[in-house]
Amino acid sequence: MSSSTRAAPTDEPRRFECYTPADHSRVSFDDGFWKSWSQTVRTVTIPTQHRRLEEEGFIEVLNFDRPPAALVRPIQPSGLSMQHFFDSDFGKWIEAASYTLKAHPDAGIEAQIDAIVDKLAAGQMADGYIHSWFVRREPDKRWSNLRDLHEMYSMGHLLEGAIAYFEATGKRRFLDVMLRLVDHIIAIFGTEPGKLRGYDAHEEIELALVKLYRITGDPRHLKLASYFVDERGRMPSYFDDEARRRGEDPDDYVFKTYAYSQAHMPVRDQTEVVGHAVRAMYLFCAMADLAREADDPSLKAACDRLFDNLSARQLYVTGGLGPSASNEGFTRAYDLPNETAYAETCAAVALGFWSHRMARIDLDSKFTDMLEKVLFNGALSGIARDGEHYFYENVLESHGQNRRWKWHYCPCCPTNIARLLTSLGQYFYGVKGSEIAVHLYGGNSAEMKVAGQTVRLRQDTGYPWDGDIRLAIGLDGPFRLTLKLRVPGWCRQARLSVNGQAVDIAASLDKGYVALTRDWADGDEIRLTFDMPVERLYAHPAVNEDAARVALQRGPIVYCVEEVDIGTEPQRLRIARDTQFTARFDADLLGGAVILEGEALEVDADDWGGVLYRGAPPVLKSRPIKAIPYHLWANRAAGAMLVWLTEH
Amino acid sequence: MSSSTRAAPTDEPRRFECYTPADHSRVSFDDGFWKSWSQTVRTVTIPTQHRRLEEEGFIEVLNFDRPPAALVRPIQPSGLSMQHFFDSDFGKWIEAASYTLKAHPDAGIEAQIDAIVDKLAAGQMADGYIHSWFVRREPDKRWSNLRDLHEMYSMGHLLEGAIAYFEATGKRRFLDVMLRLVDHIIAIFGTEPGKLRGYDAHEEIELALVKLYRITGDPRHLKLASYFVDERGRMPSYFDDEARRRGEDPDDYVFKTYAYSQAHMPVRDQTEVVGHAVRAMYLFCAMADLAREADDPSLKAACDRLFDNLSARQLYVTGGLGPSASNEGFTRAYDLPNETAYAETCAAVALGFWSHRMARIDLDSKFTDMLEKVLFNGALSGIARDGEHYFYENVLESHGQNRRWKWHYCPCCPTNIARLLTSLGQYFYGVKGSEIAVHLYGGNSAEMKVAGQTVRLRQDTGYPWDGDIRLAIGLDGPFRLTLKLRVPGWCRQARLSVNGQAVDIAASLDKGYVALTRDWADGDEIRLTFDMPVERLYAHPAVNEDAARVALQRGPIVYCVEEVDIGTEPQRLRIARDTQFTARFDADLLGGAVILEGEALEVDADDWGGVLYRGAPPVLKSRPIKAIPYHLWANRAAGAMLVWLTEH
Repeated sequence: MSSSTRAAPTDEPRRFECYTPADHSRVSFDDGFWKSWSQTVRTVTIPTQHRRLEEEGFIEVLNFDRPPAALVRPIQPSGLSMQHFFDSDFGKWIEAASYTLKAHPDAGIEAQIDAIVDKLAAGQMADGYIHSWFVRREPDKRWSNLRDLHEMYSMGHLLEGAIAYFEATGKRRFLDVMLRLVDHIIAIFGTEPGKLRGYDAHEEIELALVKLYRITGDPRHLKLASYFVDERGRMPSYFDDEARRRGEDPDDYVFKTYAYSQAHMPVRDQTEVVGHAVRAMYLFCAMADLAREADDPSLKAACDRLFDNLSARQLYVTGGLGPSASNEGFTRAYDLPNETAYAETCAAVALGFWSHRMARIDLDSKFTDMLEKVLFNGALSGIARDGEHYFYENVLESHGQNRRWKWHYCPCCPTNIARLLTSLGQYFYGVKGSEIAVHLYGGNSAEMKVAGQTVRLRQDTGYPWDGDIRLAIGLDGPFRLTLKLRVPGWCRQARLSVNGQAVDIAASLDKGYVALTRDWADGDEIRLTFDMPVERLYAHPAVNEDAARVALQRGPIVYCVEEVDIGTEPQRLRIARDTQFTARFDADLLGGAVILEGEALEVDADDWGGVLYRGAPPVLKSRPIKAIPYHLWANRAAGAMLVWLTEH
Repeated sequence: MSSSTRAAPTDEPRRFECYTPADHSRVSFDDGFWKSWSQTVRTVTIPTQHRRLEEEGFIEVLNFDRPPAALVRPIQPSGLSMQHFFDSDFGKWIEAASYTLKAHPDAGIEAQIDAIVDKLAAGQMADGYIHSWFVRREPDKRWSNLRDLHEMYSMGHLLEGAIAYFEATGKRRFLDVMLRLVDHIIAIFGTEPGKLRGYDAHEEIELALVKLYRITGDPRHLKLASYFVDERGRMPSYFDDEARRRGEDPDDYVFKTYAYSQAHMPVRDQTEVVGHAVRAMYLFCAMADLAREADDPSLKAACDRLFDNLSARQLYVTGGLGPSASNEGFTRAYDLPNETAYAETCAAVALGFWSHRMARIDLDSKFTDMLEKVLFNGALSGIARDGEHYFYENVLESHGQNRRWKWHYCPCCPTNIARLLTSLGQYFYGVKGSEIAVHLYGGNSAEMKVAGQTVRLRQDTGYPWDGDIRLAIGLDGPFRLTLKLRVPGWCRQARLSVNGQAVDIAASLDKGYVALTRDWADGDEIRLTFDMPVERLYAHPAVNEDAARVALQRGPIVYCVEEVDIGTEPQRLRIARDTQFTARFDADLLGGAVILEGEALEVDADDWGGVLYRGAPPVLKSRPIKAIPYHLWANRAAGAMLVWLTEH
C-alpha cells in the first residue's frame, strides 16, 4: 500500500480465533439450490440495478461539473432526504458488482464502475472530502449534522465498494480516492484536541474501516474504527452539542431517543437490541470485528448479550427483525406483529453479516444457524425469483396488498441483497490454520488455501430440499486437516460417515460443529445426513400475535401458505393439532422447490350471512392445502399469505 | 327571529316521518346507570374542560386585540395546524355546557360562555366573517383552502354551540353573531354566478345549518345546507381548482384521494363508507336531516346503503369505527385490527348522532340498536370514570401502553363525548303526533308534550345490568297514546305486560318496535323483560384479526378482560368452546357493574424455556377469569386488555 505496509493481522496471536472466509470467487455454485440464484443475480440483478440507478436520476447527482438538478427525493421532516445517501447505493452496487468480476470478468460492468469512480473522484474536494450531496449542494454544511444526514454511512459504503473493486480487479484508483477521504476523516474526528468528538448516527463506516484495516494493516484505520465505536453513546451526547451548534433544540429530535441509533449509552453497556435495525446490525458487525482486531473481549461479550437478546426476544421465525415502520426497528421484547412486520430486507442481510462475523471469532453453530436462517428466509424473501423485483418490508402475513417493486423510494435493499448473494461463497467456509469450518450446505465446488495446501471441496446435495450431503475432498497429496462440519440446530437426527465408515457425531461435537481431524487423501468422501421432517413451531407465549398459531418449517426453510395455491385467504384456515404434512419436490414451482401438503379446516364464509358478528361459531370444512417456502412468496398472482397458521 | 318568521317544519306533511327528540332538560337521570355519569359529566367534565381550554392556550387565540402569540400547535405537512380549528373546541364545549344549563342553571358557566362569545364577537369582521385563525393571523388567506384547513368545520361547531346556548338560555347574542356569519357564507358560496362553488372538506357546517333551519325556518339556511351536500364530490373537483389558485399541484394532496373527505363522487352515488370517519359521520348526519327537511328520498336511500355497508363490513363489535390512524378512518371491508384500532371516540359519538337521526325519520331498531351500541361501548370508552381523562383511540387490544390522557394534542374527543352525555335525554324518547318512541332503556324520569298533553314516563330499571324495566306512565287525565317500545336486536327472548296483562310482542312488532296503542291512565305500568344471557360473538370469517376468537357480550354491553383483574396478559388465555360464564353485579367495580366470571386456559410461559420458538406446543393450565364492561377499561392500574379472546 502507498502509505503503509500491508499487515496480515489474522496471523498475530489474538484472544479470539478467526476463521478467514473462503475467497468467494473460488466457490462455484455450479449445481444445486444456489445455482440459478447466483446466475440470476449476476446476469439480471447487477445490470438492472445499474439501469435503475441511471433511470431514477441517481447517477446524475455525481455531475459535480453542473449546477444541482431538482431533488429526486424530497426533504423529510428530519431534514434528511433519501438523496442524502445516494452514495451508499453506488457503494453497495459497486461492491455487489465487483464480487462477480473475478470469476466472471465483464468489461462492461468494469466500465460502468469506472465511470462512477471517475465522477466521484472529480468531486473530491481538495482536503479529500467526498459526498455527492454536500459537495454539490451544501459544502458549508458538511460535518454539521451527523445525527440526521447519514454522511459517514454513505462514505462507509463507498469504502466497502472501493475495497471490493480493488480486491476484484487490483485497480487502485477508487481505493486511493477513498484513502484520501479516510485521511480527511482522521483529521476531523477523534479525541485529540481540536478534533470533533463525533460519530455518525447511522453506523457503517466502522465496519468498513475494519475491512480497510484488514487490507492496509494501517493502525490508523483500526484506531478510527475503534474510536467511532468507543465514542458512541458517551454522554453528554455529541448529537446534543451538534444540534445546539446548528441553533436547534436537541429536544426537537424527530426520533426522540438516541436509542434509535444505538447511541443512548456506551455500546459495551447495551444489553437489549434497540432502535433502527440496520444501524444496530452494522454496529454489531463492527463490534464483532473489533473484538478480534482490537483484541477486546468486552466487545465480544456485548455482542453475545445482544445476539442472545435478539434471538430469544426480538426475532421473527423467518430471521426478519425490526418489527416497526416508525423507527425501522425494534420496539419491545416479543413484539412481533405479522401483517405490519417491517422486517427490512437490509436488516436480515445485515444480521447475516453479523452472524457470520460472530462465527468467524467464535465457531458456534448458533451463529451460522442464524446466518442460514436469514439466508433461506428473511433475506432471500427480499428479492423476487426474477432477480429484479424486491421487498423492502418482509411481512409474515398479507391480504394481498404487498407486491414486489422494481425500485423503491429508498432503494437500500436491492443492492444489499445483491452483495450478499454475489459473495455467497465466502459464507460457506472458514479457514483457520489447518482447519476448514463448513458453515453452510448446498451444492458447490470450492477451492481453498489451507496451511499452504490447496484443498478442494465439492458438495453434492439437494440441500435445503433434502438433508443428504456428499462432501468430496480434493487434495494434491495426503494432508492432515481438521474439517469442522456444522450440525444445524434445527436437526434432531444427524448421521455422518467418512468413506462409508460411520462417525459418532455426539462424541466430537463442540458448539454445534463436529470435528474430523485426520490424514485426508484425495477422493475421500464424507456423507452427512440430516433428517428433515416437517416441523411445527410454536412461538413463546408472550408473542401475542402468534397465539394459537403454528408455523411450518422443514430443514432451514420456513413455509407459508399463499392464496394463489389454495384459492382462498389462508387466514380462513385452521390446522388441526395432529395434521400430518408431507413434503414433495415440485419441479414446476418457480424453478423447483419442496412444498408441503396436508389437510386443513376452512371457515365457510358462504354460510355466514350478511352480518358482521353472530352468535353461532363458524362452520369448518376439511380441505387440502399446500405450503411453499416463505422466500418464494409473492412471485405469482397477487393474494393473501400467511406464515403463522391458526391452530384448531 | 329577526329576519324570518319561525316555522315549525316538522308539522308540514313530508315524505319521511319525524320523531322529535325529547327535550333533554326534561329527562332526569335521577337513578340507574346514567345517574353518576350525568352528574360526573356536569360537575367534573364541563368545568375541567374549560380549565384545559385556558391552561392549554386555546382561549388565548381569541384575543384579537393583541398580536398573534406563538403557535400552540405546529403546522403539519398538510399545512394544517390543530390550532386552525380551536374554534370547534369552543363550539363543542359551549354546546355541551349549554345542555346542562336548563336543568342546572349555573351563572359561572354562563359567564364563561359569555366571555368566549364576547371575544368571538370582537373578532367578527365587518362582513360577518369569524374564525380565530384567519381573522388574527391570515385574513388574506380566508376561503383559500377548504381542502385542508377546516374553516367551515370550525364555523359549524360554533353554530351548534350558539344554537344550544340560545335554546338553553334564550340569550340571542351568540346566535345573532353566527347568523351574520351565515349570511356571509351565503354571500360567498353557491351556484349563483360570482359565488365560489366550494364546500368544506371536513363536514360539519351542513348539519349545523339544518339545526339552524329548524329553529329559524329560514329557507336560505336549508338551501345552503343542501347546496353543500349536493355540491360535494362534483367533478372536476373544487379542491383541484382551489389548489391551482394557490399555485399548488392538486396531485400533491397529502391524503391522495378526496375519498378522505367523502368528496370523490357525489354523495348520492356513494355506497361504501370511506375516508375520515368523523367527516363521514357528520356528512351522513346532514344527509339524514336533509332527507327529511328537503324531502329527498335519494338522500335517505344513500344513507341506508351506507349504514348497511358500515354495519355489515366496517364496524368494530364495540361500535368503534375507522380502523386506520393514517387517514383517521376507513380502509377496506373487514379490516378491523384490534391493537391498532383507531376507532376515534368522536367517530363513535358521531355514529350515535347519525343513527339517532336515521331513527328519527325511519323508526327502525337497527338504528337505535346502533345508537345503544356506541353509547354503552365505543363512545363511552372514550371518557374515564372520573370524567376528566380520555381516549382518542379506542383499541380493542392493548399490551398496557394505552393510557387515558387529561388533554390531547388534538382535543376534539373530550367535548364531543361531553355534548353527547349532557344531552342524553333527547336520545331516549322521540315524539311524533300522539306517539312516543322509547328508543333507549335506563333509569330516568321524563316529561314530554304529546299532542298538547303532558306525558310523564318513569323507567325503573337496573338496565343495562339487568333486562327488567318498569315503565310507569304519568298523565293528567286519560289519553289515547301510542307507545312504541324498542325490542333490542341483541335480545332473543323478550316479555311485555301492561298492568300485569301479558302482551304478545310478536303480534305488534314492526322494525324492532312493539306498538301499544290504547287509552292510557295515570299510573299505568308497563313491564318489559329482556333476557340477558352471556352471549359469545364470532366475527365474519373475513375479519382475519378475529379468527378463532370470541367476544363476550351481555345485553348491550361488550366485555373485555383486563390484566389488572387476572394478573396476566389476557392474550395468554384460551377460552374453551363450552365454557359457561356467569354474570354477577360487582358493587365495588368503578361505581358498580356486572362482571362475567368463568374458566379459561392459560398458557404457561414459565415452562417455555429461554427460546423464542419451539416444537412443543404451549402447556395450558385452567384458571378462573373475569371480564368487565369494555367501557370501563383503563380506569385502574395499567395493563393489557383484550376484547376478542382466543378460543381453544
